[in-house]
Amino acid sequence: MSHSSQDTTRAAPGPDLRHHGDRDAAAGLIDLAVNVRAGMPPPWLRDRLRATVDDVAAYPDAKPAAEAIAVRHGRPADEVLPAAGGAEAFTLIARAFRPGADVQRAVVVHPQFTEPEVALTTARHTVERVVLSAADGFVLDPSIVPGDADLVVVGNPTNPTSVLHPARSIERLTRPGRIVVVDEAFMDAVPGEAESVADRRDLPGLVVLRSLTKTWGLAGIRAGYILGPADAIERFRDVQPPWSVSSLAVEAIQACLEPSALAEAERTARADEPVRAWLAAELRQFGGEVVSAPRAPFVLVRFPDDDGLRHRLRDAGWAVRRGDTFPGLGQDWFRIALRDRSTLASFLSVLSACLTSGGGPAGEAPAS
Amino acid sequence: MSHSSQDTTRAAPGPDLRHHGDRDAAAGLIDLAVNVRAGMPPPWLRDRLRATVDDVAAYPDAKPAAEAIAVRHGRPADEVLPAAGGAEAFTLIARAFRPGADVQRAVVVHPQFTEPEVALTTARHTVERVVLSAADGFVLDPSIVPGDADLVVVGNPTNPTSVLHPARSIERLTRPGRIVVVDEAFMDAVPGEAESVADRRDLPGLVVLRSLTKTWGLAGIRAGYILGPADAIERFRDVQPPWSVSSLAVEAIQACLEPSALAEAERTARADEPVRAWLAAELRQFGGEVVSAPRAPFVLVRFPDDDGLRHRLRDAGWAVRRGDTFPGLGQDWFRIALRDRSTLASFLSVLSACLTSGGGPAGEAPAS
Repeated sequence: MSHSSQDTTRAAPGPDLRHHGDRDAAAGLIDLAVNVRAGMPPPWLRDRLRATVDDVAAYPDAKPAAEAIAVRHGRPADEVLPAAGGAEAFTLIARAFRPGADVQRAVVVHPQFTEPEVALTTARHTVERVVLSAADGFVLDPSIVPGDADLVVVGNPTNPTSVLHPARSIERLTRPGRIVVVDEAFMDAVPGEAESVADRRDLPGLVVLRSLTKTWGLAGIRAGYILGPADAIERFRDVQPPWSVSSLAVEAIQACLEPSALAEAERTARADEPVRAWLAAELRQFGGEVVSAPRAPFVLVRFPDDDGLRHRLRDAGWAVRRGDTFPGLGQDWFRIALRDRSTLASFLSVLSACLTSGGGPAGEAPAS
Repeated sequence: MSHSSQDTTRAAPGPDLRHHGDRDAAAGLIDLAVNVRAGMPPPWLRDRLRATVDDVAAYPDAKPAAEAIAVRHGRPADEVLPAAGGAEAFTLIARAFRPGADVQRAVVVHPQFTEPEVALTTARHTVERVVLSAADGFVLDPSIVPGDADLVVVGNPTNPTSVLHPARSIERLTRPGRIVVVDEAFMDAVPGEAESVADRRDLPGLVVLRSLTKTWGLAGIRAGYILGPADAIERFRDVQPPWSVSSLAVEAIQACLEPSALAEAERTARADEPVRAWLAAELRQFGGEVVSAPRAPFVLVRFPDDDGLRHRLRDAGWAVRRGDTFPGLGQDWFRIALRDRSTLASFLSVLSACLTSGGGPAGEAPAS
């Protein structure tokens, strides 16, 4: 039996969907809240970005970025669109379809990154939520999505649950007359990009979003892209402001899609696997609930009924991403970004102290 | 008698409004088509942008940019909004108001930069054009704008005409219940920013756009901002994707609004004045029609009935901005960006040859 549920009310009250991890990471705290892997882009990438500063007098030309994306994913140029980050991509998708005319029933699968729903409601779509359940391990059952939904948004691997849905589940969501948007912002952190549908040109209405922000430390540059059928891409391009993708974003997209960069991302993804498995095991040892196989560069954990734990961690100097602003999660959930093992070990010792200290703030300062 | 006209048809057929100067400036041509002043940002600004590359792992925070804008224009923080260039700003304005509900009659004063109209029609507004006439020197007569227009867009100084409308004319456009959008993208190239209404908080519904692109050579960075009443700014912010203004744009806005930068812009604006006056006089001597007092960093010129001149200039190695994609102008108009005197002198000698060569391409290669 599925524990997942549908929320067919308009998504107005409830959690603050505009809250993001960068607001949890206040100055002075050690940041495990923001899902950006690197503290800085790697030297070779910074060199290329710095060199681009000499070229910024010219209006940006996104064509070389589009060509690099097309080559990377084996698609014709009219099936790709560079974007100013995932946030712009969601806005373009929301704006491209007229509420009630082009899209009659928009469904967002939660818990997930909240911006797609914000972008849709801002563009005056009515959004229905399908909320996956912790009891099911937040696993997507495609049959829970209403059959006549003509726009469906799902994340894979999903932020914040860290669940990687099988490509087969995504495939089962697609059908003629329906747009399925798959947010693969964290897919390049999955070894072999297992379960990616980015190259599945055969699936009808499939739109895939990619980001360079997380693996490459480029949140400040705003670089990502959309893949999809030519007619959908044309719609998105029509509502994109001209020159939206900056010269540095164009350069970053080209740089990060080169074979050497893809190989580097793959090595990072593999190196992260044992760290994540160890973190998840440690959290479970402390009594935390973690999904059975987290696959993204972050781990979602719940310490049942301990609503104050996040605050005690904060008092002890550590920022984690609060869970309660994600539909389907409560106060006792939080998300931990993957960092190096020693940082996480320090965190775990502080966590341990905060758990035993119960209601009050932990007195101990963290190792940094 | 006014020669200006109203075009109340929906702005679908006619000139290609999505054409811009960067498409006229093909490789190998000397570029007088693109309205960016510098071939590169100045060294101090490039240094700051390069240094910012080390900080791009963090999500961009536009607050310091907003504060710098507020200080610069003597406005509270809720009356300013940093934007990813003027193109994003027009999109935000177009989307913030519902067609037929918030805005019933949108009017764009032409000839002007065509993106505002594109952004409005993309957001499904019906746009009426008020077309100023060459016979009137493209001077704005506020009474030609329909009294019940509740959204009016005008450029000042106007691209491509180079006309600077008196602040008094803009003031006469404003009234309760009407939004007046003034595109001041080139105002920092006018000495003393004469006729600017950026600081006129007293005028109802007045929204002012600014760009850093032109004076500072930052087209590739996407940096600009909007000034206006707090309720309008809140609407624009609500439809702006999160993190839309990149870290480099935030840094650029702060840098270019410092007193030393403002002084540098003012010196450049003053130094340009005699060059522009000389260029205009030379063009007139060759039989060109130029508005009586061009005030922007470009000059619009018409060689009556010589529709092929632009092509002959192109064959001779020089790119100018075609005029015929601006509503109200024809094939025999083109726009020349202000450059240094020796580049312009070379251009004028080629122009002279192209004029005498009549129908055929000029045989002479340009001095570079």
